[in-house]
Amino acid sequence: MTDFFKDCPRIAYEGPDSPNDFAFRHYNPDEMVGDKSLKDHLRFAVAYWHSFAWPGGDPFGGQTFERPWFTDDMAGARMKADVAFEMFEILGAPYFCFHDADVRPEGATFAESEDRLKEITDIFASKMEATGVKLLWGTANLFSHRRFMSGAATNPDPEIYAYAAATVKSCMDATLALGGENYVLWGGREGYETLLNTDLKRERAQAGAFLQRAVEYKHKIGFKGAILIEPKPQEPTKHQYDYDVATVYGFLKEYGLEDEVQVNIEQGHAILAGHSFEHEIALASALGIFGSIDMNRNDYQSGWDTDQFPDNPREVALAYYEILRAGGFTTGGTNFDAKLRRQSLDPADLILAHAGAMDVCARGLKAAAAMLDDGGLEAARQARYAGWDASDIASRDFESIHAQVSGSGLQPEPKSGRQERLENYISRFV
Amino acid sequence: MTDFFKDCPRIAYEGPDSPNDFAFRHYNPDEMVGDKSLKDHLRFAVAYWHSFAWPGGDPFGGQTFERPWFTDDMAGARMKADVAFEMFEILGAPYFCFHDADVRPEGATFAESEDRLKEITDIFASKMEATGVKLLWGTANLFSHRRFMSGAATNPDPEIYAYAAATVKSCMDATLALGGENYVLWGGREGYETLLNTDLKRERAQAGAFLQRAVEYKHKIGFKGAILIEPKPQEPTKHQYDYDVATVYGFLKEYGLEDEVQVNIEQGHAILAGHSFEHEIALASALGIFGSIDMNRNDYQSGWDTDQFPDNPREVALAYYEILRAGGFTTGGTNFDAKLRRQSLDPADLILAHAGAMDVCARGLKAAAAMLDDGGLEAARQARYAGWDASDIASRDFESIHAQVSGSGLQPEPKSGRQERLENYISRFV
Amino acid sequence: MTDFFKDCPRIAYEGPDSPNDFAFRHYNPDEMVGDKSLKDHLRFAVAYWHSFAWPGGDPFGGQTFERPWFTDDMAGARMKADVAFEMFEILGAPYFCFHDADVRPEGATFAESEDRLKEITDIFASKMEATGVKLLWGTANLFSHRRFMSGAATNPDPEIYAYAAATVKSCMDATLALGGENYVLWGGREGYETLLNTDLKRERAQAGAFLQRAVEYKHKIGFKGAILIEPKPQEPTKHQYDYDVATVYGFLKEYGLEDEVQVNIEQGHAILAGHSFEHEIALASALGIFGSIDMNRNDYQSGWDTDQFPDNPREVALAYYEILRAGGFTTGGTNFDAKLRRQSLDPADLILAHAGAMDVCARGLKAAAAMLDDGGLEAARQARYAGWDASDIASRDFESIHAQVSGSGLQPEPKSGRQERLENYISRFV
Amino acid sequence: MTDFFKDCPRIAYEGPDSPNDFAFRHYNPDEMVGDKSLKDHLRFAVAYWHSFAWPGGDPFGGQTFERPWFTDDMAGARMKADVAFEMFEILGAPYFCFHDADVRPEGATFAESEDRLKEITDIFASKMEATGVKLLWGTANLFSHRRFMSGAATNPDPEIYAYAAATVKSCMDATLALGGENYVLWGGREGYETLLNTDLKRERAQAGAFLQRAVEYKHKIGFKGAILIEPKPQEPTKHQYDYDVATVYGFLKEYGLEDEVQVNIEQGHAILAGHSFEHEIALASALGIFGSIDMNRNDYQSGWDTDQFPDNPREVALAYYEILRAGGFTTGGTNFDAKLRRQSLDPADLILAHAGAMDVCARGLKAAAAMLDDGGLEAARQARYAGWDASDIASRDFESIHAQVSGSGLQPEPKSGRQERLENYISRFV
Repeated sequence: MTDFFKDCPRIAYEGPDSPNDFAFRHYNPDEMVGDKSLKDHLRFAVAYWHSFAWPGGDPFGGQTFERPWFTDDMAGARMKADVAFEMFEILGAPYFCFHDADVRPEGATFAESEDRLKEITDIFASKMEATGVKLLWGTANLFSHRRFMSGAATNPDPEIYAYAAATVKSCMDATLALGGENYVLWGGREGYETLLNTDLKRERAQAGAFLQRAVEYKHKIGFKGAILIEPKPQEPTKHQYDYDVATVYGFLKEYGLEDEVQVNIEQGHAILAGHSFEHEIALASALGIFGSIDMNRNDYQSGWDTDQFPDNPREVALAYYEILRAGGFTTGGTNFDAKLRRQSLDPADLILAHAGAMDVCARGLKAAAAMLDDGGLEAARQARYAGWDASDIASRDFESIHAQVSGSGLQPEPKSGRQERLENYISRFV
Repeated sequence: MTDFFKDCPRIAYEGPDSPNDFAFRHYNPDEMVGDKSLKDHLRFAVAYWHSFAWPGGDPFGGQTFERPWFTDDMAGARMKADVAFEMFEILGAPYFCFHDADVRPEGATFAESEDRLKEITDIFASKMEATGVKLLWGTANLFSHRRFMSGAATNPDPEIYAYAAATVKSCMDATLALGGENYVLWGGREGYETLLNTDLKRERAQAGAFLQRAVEYKHKIGFKGAILIEPKPQEPTKHQYDYDVATVYGFLKEYGLEDEVQVNIEQGHAILAGHSFEHEIALASALGIFGSIDMNRNDYQSGWDTDQFPDNPREVALAYYEILRAGGFTTGGTNFDAKLRRQSLDPADLILAHAGAMDVCARGLKAAAAMLDDGGLEAARQARYAGWDASDIASRDFESIHAQVSGSGLQPEPKSGRQERLENYISRFV
Repeated sequence: MTDFFKDCPRIAYEGPDSPNDFAFRHYNPDEMVGDKSLKDHLRFAVAYWHSFAWPGGDPFGGQTFERPWFTDDMAGARMKADVAFEMFEILGAPYFCFHDADVRPEGATFAESEDRLKEITDIFASKMEATGVKLLWGTANLFSHRRFMSGAATNPDPEIYAYAAATVKSCMDATLALGGENYVLWGGREGYETLLNTDLKRERAQAGAFLQRAVEYKHKIGFKGAILIEPKPQEPTKHQYDYDVATVYGFLKEYGLEDEVQVNIEQGHAILAGHSFEHEIALASALGIFGSIDMNRNDYQSGWDTDQFPDNPREVALAYYEILRAGGFTTGGTNFDAKLRRQSLDPADLILAHAGAMDVCARGLKAAAAMLDDGGLEAARQARYAGWDASDIASRDFESIHAQVSGSGLQPEPKSGRQERLENYISRFV
Repeated sequence: MTDFFKDCPRIAYEGPDSPNDFAFRHYNPDEMVGDKSLKDHLRFAVAYWHSFAWPGGDPFGGQTFERPWFTDDMAGARMKADVAFEMFEILGAPYFCFHDADVRPEGATFAESEDRLKEITDIFASKMEATGVKLLWGTANLFSHRRFMSGAATNPDPEIYAYAAATVKSCMDATLALGGENYVLWGGREGYETLLNTDLKRERAQAGAFLQRAVEYKHKIGFKGAILIEPKPQEPTKHQYDYDVATVYGFLKEYGLEDEVQVNIEQGHAILAGHSFEHEIALASALGIFGSIDMNRNDYQSGWDTDQFPDNPREVALAYYEILRAGGFTTGGTNFDAKLRRQSLDPADLILAHAGAMDVCARGLKAAAAMLDDGGLEAARQARYAGWDASDIASRDFESIHAQVSGSGLQPEPKSGRQERLENYISRFV
């Protein structure tokens, strides 16, 4: 055991009135909600990167965190793994997620980087067995190294496409080896900084081919989990190709992948694209491509990714409502970065950010389940569209409709949308 | 002749140094750019609504314009048509565009509204013949009347779907009768104010059926023009289904309409969706669905549609560059609202807004043509992607790529994107 | 009694578990929080304009509400007053607020408009006496009529300044006559649409003189209430002079009015200006100019004023926390528009919007009071700045500080800001 | 001489039609505009930081630039100075600007850091003498080092205030020694990440005291240049105290410094605060606190500081128009970062970014001077406000105005603001 979290007790459920900072007030993992425990509903996953790999820099300042494992060698990587699994246990988190670059230092060559990944993967495997913690998803970091500055799959240099493809293979292999339940692709550099130097059509085709090859490789190795694309509109690039759920859907349709690939939706990315989080989930569900979520909140007033942990139970409840309405998670789950503010230097800050996030999620999910159980929203919706249940109008041609409207003196009267009543209804549950 | 524009002379080209307010400094309609005149390249269309139908209100204040035709009767509608065609001639505008609601007062019944539309259509036909002005596109206003407050095709009430379908039929008929070159659908209320009362999946299906029926009707009546969807992300609704070009593409693919329907892209809508105008055009071209443009500028710092006329030749040039690169307009053209500020009360303001818009567009188009002719951007782009011309990497499987990367010690070096050089290059032409 | 609200029962407190739409779940007016009742803490005021005067239009559509008093005559104005006071009683709202234009139709002359205002004022006086409802503030609408399209005090035409001054006098008289506790100025058109036609310096001076004259008049007539400016950054104008609290403070300092005038802070305006609501309140308190609030929520994703009722207890709690920390309201209170969505046609929607708003405010205030009572935030803050209590460093000159720093090898160590812990702390109370 | 710029020729003026990348097309330094040369009007200054100190990282990726001087030792600092002055000469830039942290590596102690600064200052002094390049302003970096993570003057720890004060003294000394014409304070961390842990009132008082001490020290050492505050609304902090020009003005008034301190206005910061660049300049001029500018363009669609070089001559012209109208620069000038995109790896990119910036500025300034000379805007403005020249209305009390308005039947008619005409007018010159 390291002593990094020596002042941080294991977080236990103590009920809503507990004044203890180091307690869950809402997340009681074994509490049954419907026929599943909260733990099985929420499927929490801790993200390796912001918790263990991010040094605390921002565009105007450098490293603030001084972690003992920031040594850029394999000893540091092993210590980091020790601390990470200690944190998973303090939190009782059932899953984690990682990029290759989070868990091992870059090697001098591709082969060395991959060897290092394998060494850490073996360490993970034994820790996972010892603790019962599982892997929600693995992924490759195809955006931080300068070789990817102009894209990975969409790079103007095919050698970089090749490097990216080899990297994804190695990360899919690692994910399979660890029993990961999904594999994620976030195209942080798959976009452009300026259209002036960009062949948009060609880059889209490169991205399409890359994704087709990834799907083929998944099937070849027998990986049973889902492949997930994580939409984001911009940042780091001026424009990202995986802008939002609707854009990804069109892309999947273009390349015939809509039955093969799903989306991993982040709150912060949704709102940067101008959508509510629940919209993106509802749309993905309607299109049949919902996969998993990143519950990272963005500050609505910051035009960049702040990746904070959620603090608004109402918003979280509306998100889980859409998930539960669509049947709940299958392979997906609730990942959250809980990226600390860079002034939050203490190990306890890291624990408390995660504990707070889990509590807000639990509140949201319980409220969502209660609303679904109550049925008020669904009943209102069904009543509102009831006229359609007996109508064949959508299949009729315009001429026959025109004849009827023109002849009948039809003057349809609008009806109240009752939005305020429904908003109050939500307030009853959160 | 009315005397509304009695103080406004016909606008003629006088060259860049003319100090005359009532002159074109850049738009010389007959100037040849490549093998087409500026007039044929730009295909300017004046929008009826903001110019002749909008009373000058905003959310905090009422009517400011006192037009003699604001009488809400057919006499006013006829006077409005007189004034409109006088303006087209003052400007030398070759095209116009309209909604049904712009040109005739609402009748007591659907049939009366349609009769009024036909009466005005006949007036238009004779004026068009007399003046040579043509119709770029017609459209139905399915958003202003309270019956459409909760949507037209996507309304929870099928009677309102029916009313909308009958209306589109009547407007397509009018467009055909007038020789219109396109028919536009703007789904101003096709979206939602709150997801709480909305069946997203059902509403998408309604919209899909409506569009399929519209396409069927077009073919039935032999309308040869294009059907165009005009994307917009939000406003008036919280969320509009035709969010942006990528979203519309996915929707068209879902309903098998990607070869039937194109997009009409507005600068203001593009930037409200977080995109540059040229991005939306380039993407539509890459996807094969580019149709036409609305050159309405939004204030980048206002979160609502300001529909101003363009004032930035650089931005306009980048837009026309993408259009010319894709072959120029076919059925489409350059519509612009040139919505006056509500303090701009004078008839001259209306003329000058349009003249200014046409001049900025002409500058932009000439710069775009010169850049394309020079070839600097295309050469830079081709050089940047040259490695791909001889590469089969995108068709190779991940395992073989991995073997190669892993074995070769490949360390691809990033190359400068040279963005600043290309930005300076643009400055040479605008 | 009118029968407008015939289906809406009086709203009573029924406790958090009540499933009754027409009940308060959190607002128990007589519940004591500290030494004051909730009613006296919150000082709710219903806004006349959006509730009774707004027809439901938006920039893309016209009137949706069909109220029987929309007759543009004094009979309508009287019926509107009847309905308004019926609503105040249904809600148990202790206060209301109005503009002159909300309560009477515009007359043919200034004198007629003023006479009509007096007639309604008399009606209000007797209704107020009968019901016990009081006036939180009165104000003049200096933005809707076309004469104000280019500003009121800041108009380029001094005759319009004069018209505005006369109007404010009449509204201050009415406010005094009704025992109003404050008088508000919202400068909806005091700004510009384009700097090109604007003499910024001159307009600021006009606004300064106008405000000085308003303060003089207040003293002359013995009005004891506060004069409040309501900051807003933009909309309807491109730029409003009363941009935010900090801007208003600088303006008051420039004209020597910082002890005479306070601010009325709206959530929606705060966030349009890029600030959190609690920031604006905390800043106004720190500067000694806090007056009152408008609890109108903006959609964070809409770039215009949506004026919805609050739905996020956490945000409301943080706002009231700053108010309570500064001693609570004196003459101010909680105004809210609860502007309906334009699809919310039913009388019940109007009642429910207000009831929902009051409930969320009550939750927020109770949470704020509990946090203040607990003292956790203040204790953390005091600990964080404890070093300053014994320090004279801010009064020392740079040379002596430099000598000390340079000589001592001082290496100050940063300490955690503990943001996440404090965010979790808030979650305990809301 | 280093060989860093060995492929970059000196940039000379070649006229608007030159196709040479390495040429000015508009900036002819000795061209007279009115009674001053372009060089003396524009007073260009190259910023040290983004050009020579920034490694190319962003929140999602690390260093992309591989500069030979990135060695974190004094040898690197000296090579950096060599390259910087080589670039100043290639560009013919008359001024430069720097932070202490740009020019020397951090020492182990404050004293060592200061010694290093002095060593570099001496090198600068001799290079300045040799080349004629001058210092527009110096400044201290009080935001990058982790000790400043929670603020400098506004830090909760008075020791960090002390460290900041000592640092500013050393940088003011260096600026004085080098004949700098201004001293700038940018409060990158003077704000807060969360109000929850912040004593807003106390921090404002700390900042006020710090600024008073800085002014006192300036007078003590006989520094004749201006002290400039650079407003910015947010980023890196959630809220910065120097939000915008109006906010800074109120702050200066509060601490009695409005005659001592001026503002350095950046385009990017202006638009992040919701203002146009020309607004901020016009406001600062009206308030008597205009000092200098940073011509760093922000992408209007990115919610963070992109610090690109300007590319829109119209916007630049409107900014210089306000500067020239107020009399032109005195101690101030045109600083620009021309921060490269992180994919722009080549030395030539750095030169071309600056050359392009200077050209766009020269176009803008020449257009602004021509407009001022033509007088069209001023004439329109004077005509618009002409009624005020003979009016005493602003000094009259509300009662007398009311009597007049009420008795006279005054019905002031609004007049067109003629915005479109004025916008076209601008187009004539740019």
